[in-house]
Amino acid sequence: MTTTSPSGDSVHTVVIGAGYAGLAAALSLADNGIDVLVLEASDRVGGRVHSERLDDGVVVDHGGQWVGPTQHRLLAAADRFGCATFPTYDTGDHLELWADGKCRPFRGAGPAGGPGVEQYIEATEAIDKLAITVNLDDPSATERIAEWDSETVQSYFDRTVADADARRRLALAVQGVWTVEPRDISLFHLLFYVASAGGFDQLMETAGCAQERRFVGGAQSVALAMAEHLGEKIRLNTPVTCVEHGADGVRVDTDRGPVYASHVVVAASPGAAVRIRFTPALPPSRNRWMERSPMGEVSKIHTVYDRPFWRERGLSGQATVYGDHNVGVVFDNSPEGGEAGVLVSFAYGDRQRRWAALPAAERRADILATLGAIFGDEAAHPVRYTEKSWPEDPWAHGGYAANPAPGVWVEHGATGWRTPCGRIHWAGSETSSVWNGYIDGAIASGQRAADEIIAAATP
Amino acid sequence: MTTTSPSGDSVHTVVIGAGYAGLAAALSLADNGIDVLVLEASDRVGGRVHSERLDDGVVVDHGGQWVGPTQHRLLAAADRFGCATFPTYDTGDHLELWADGKCRPFRGAGPAGGPGVEQYIEATEAIDKLAITVNLDDPSATERIAEWDSETVQSYFDRTVADADARRRLALAVQGVWTVEPRDISLFHLLFYVASAGGFDQLMETAGCAQERRFVGGAQSVALAMAEHLGEKIRLNTPVTCVEHGADGVRVDTDRGPVYASHVVVAASPGAAVRIRFTPALPPSRNRWMERSPMGEVSKIHTVYDRPFWRERGLSGQATVYGDHNVGVVFDNSPEGGEAGVLVSFAYGDRQRRWAALPAAERRADILATLGAIFGDEAAHPVRYTEKSWPEDPWAHGGYAANPAPGVWVEHGATGWRTPCGRIHWAGSETSSVWNGYIDGAIASGQRAADEIIAAATP
Repeated sequence: MTTTSPSGDSVHTVVIGAGYAGLAAALSLADNGIDVLVLEASDRVGGRVHSERLDDGVVVDHGGQWVGPTQHRLLAAADRFGCATFPTYDTGDHLELWADGKCRPFRGAGPAGGPGVEQYIEATEAIDKLAITVNLDDPSATERIAEWDSETVQSYFDRTVADADARRRLALAVQGVWTVEPRDISLFHLLFYVASAGGFDQLMETAGCAQERRFVGGAQSVALAMAEHLGEKIRLNTPVTCVEHGADGVRVDTDRGPVYASHVVVAASPGAAVRIRFTPALPPSRNRWMERSPMGEVSKIHTVYDRPFWRERGLSGQATVYGDHNVGVVFDNSPEGGEAGVLVSFAYGDRQRRWAALPAAERRADILATLGAIFGDEAAHPVRYTEKSWPEDPWAHGGYAANPAPGVWVEHGATGWRTPCGRIHWAGSETSSVWNGYIDGAIASGQRAADEIIAAATP
Repeated sequence: MTTTSPSGDSVHTVVIGAGYAGLAAALSLADNGIDVLVLEASDRVGGRVHSERLDDGVVVDHGGQWVGPTQHRLLAAADRFGCATFPTYDTGDHLELWADGKCRPFRGAGPAGGPGVEQYIEATEAIDKLAITVNLDDPSATERIAEWDSETVQSYFDRTVADADARRRLALAVQGVWTVEPRDISLFHLLFYVASAGGFDQLMETAGCAQERRFVGGAQSVALAMAEHLGEKIRLNTPVTCVEHGADGVRVDTDRGPVYASHVVVAASPGAAVRIRFTPALPPSRNRWMERSPMGEVSKIHTVYDRPFWRERGLSGQATVYGDHNVGVVFDNSPEGGEAGVLVSFAYGDRQRRWAALPAAERRADILATLGAIFGDEAAHPVRYTEKSWPEDPWAHGGYAANPAPGVWVEHGATGWRTPCGRIHWAGSETSSVWNGYIDGAIASGQRAADEIIAAATP
């Protein structure tokens, strides 16, 4: 099957990108006896999942970190490679720093009787009712797609939610899940994404939902185990510049020379994939899909303490932040045994940009001031501070995921989303019908791309 | 000023792209004694302006083609190089093929008393009233930008224009000017664009407006003359893959080796510029600006006849088309002397995609059927037929221009729009405060980028 190789390596399938999508594709192909080579631009595997063991042994997750009970593919991979998980700390009161500066305890969607909570819940229920009509296998075939993809989420909320406080809550939910502002995505993309996860609460909540468990060794541990299994089939520090493709095969150009193959799986971040030159040019619908699906904007900031002191005061460490603060959401990211206290703060969208533009010392002071306002002065004095701004990542170009702009689903969804272009196959969490944008969706997408190639290779 | 050159060429400034923006930048730099080299990916200059002389001597413009009386920079360049213009044929009745299948004559915005004309005119006047408040030098400083950039043009029309027929007319206007659907751009981008042209009518009309005159030798003739003047300072067939930049200078990598320079002007189509690898990575705001400004979608189809037979019947050859047809607008594109008859048909947005996906024979038949329905059977039998679909152009990736998606102006306009990134300067019509998206804006942008470099080079 492998094409002839004038010079350079030759394999059956090249996979571009060693994030979870690429690793899952390669693993599936290797499991089926197909010769595969993964080309990764950066110096590590995992893509938008990146765990780091700090000097004191604490593991922090700079990128994707959680796993939920319906994320079967990620759970299966963790099981295969013996990567242990543990429950996200979810005991006690969450805190809400409201726009008026008051800090209130809450459980669930917000403090009972708090500003806008009732209409917020009504709005999320209305979203769920619309979302169940989305056709997940072929979103472009959804009956009301033209209507829903023509309006921004902000216009939809402005039009349907009277209470400004409820709209504040909804905006933070959109920022937290999509890492963009409600003006940046269409109602249809929101509905599709909700549907792919199985409902709005699945995206938002901890117990029984997407944030239920964490990995003992960090969320990258499964990727590292997959990579170890693949061994020399992975080549790091090898950015792809150009893919030449034709009826006979593909030629993948890298800074270290070409690789010839029968098929290629593009599993790079959409922010990186759009920068690869395809010759001949891709069909306009695929080009447009990539061009018009910009990466979200999120920073994760970890602060480490000698102990999770908030737990002593009956607090979960979870907080939602409104008003002028740059932090949007805080979680307890301490190790399983609680031998250190770790808070992770998220900044999204407008607030991420505002925060990331500050000098380093001001960024740190800003985060610590907000944590102090929520959890008291002790939170403002961590023993360690780390931050990761995904828009500045040279290969991911952002995170968590790429979000198609208004109009993109209805205009290009039918063939631009994930239809193979000859011998070019598309993976990446953004191409998944389940848990789109999540690690689980990335694995699903890699397995689906591998299935396409296995089917083509089977006479 | 020029940096040292380990190997490869060395100049003061590299300009990427030989469209009007790049040519204007190079000309301005050369006029000021600065050593410049223009690297052009394709085998010609002109970018999204491309004139072709057919075998029978008729010149057709596959891309940008008109010049209006307030487009002073393009008129000055035409004057400098002796490129003659002539009035667009604008005599007689225009025709409107309405959604009900009826073909009605009109002058101006639509037939007096025609469906929706009154509300259409009211809506365009309302747009003009909002547009005059746009800050053209710093659009991000416009007072109501957050509100206007959060809603699609479609939502705005749905909300403010009651008459569905008026909304049909407005949709065609958006398609014709921005080559996208009203769902694809924000109200703010529409207002900015209108303001940069000097009003809605400037964009839409012929006499006294953007479509007033054409070039005897085609609109590319000025670009060809500029290129001839620059001579060996232009290198064709030289795609740029990577720009390395630092405090000391830039290194521009091409398929033919590196070029070292003190400054670089990126004047490539945004669809091409986003595919260049920058090392170190660009600031997030500039990255996002490019990623989130997709190219519009337009095809131009020329049909040539032995004479402009419609003129004999008192028709201008101009038509607007509603309903199920794929053509949106038709113009008389005959040579000045009328020695042949030429109609140019435009397809935009949804209709462009639908049409471009047809096999070649069906595309032709589809266009001729529509022209026959408007101008009679004679129009269905041209002596020659040519078409150009800009989304399939390997270097432009679309046309006329790139349109920032909803949210992009308010989120990234302040620094992402055109602020230099160190030694990297940004040109291209999309970076112009005047006639954004037009040839005139391209020239203005190139001159502005050159001014930045001239200022930096002056002690």
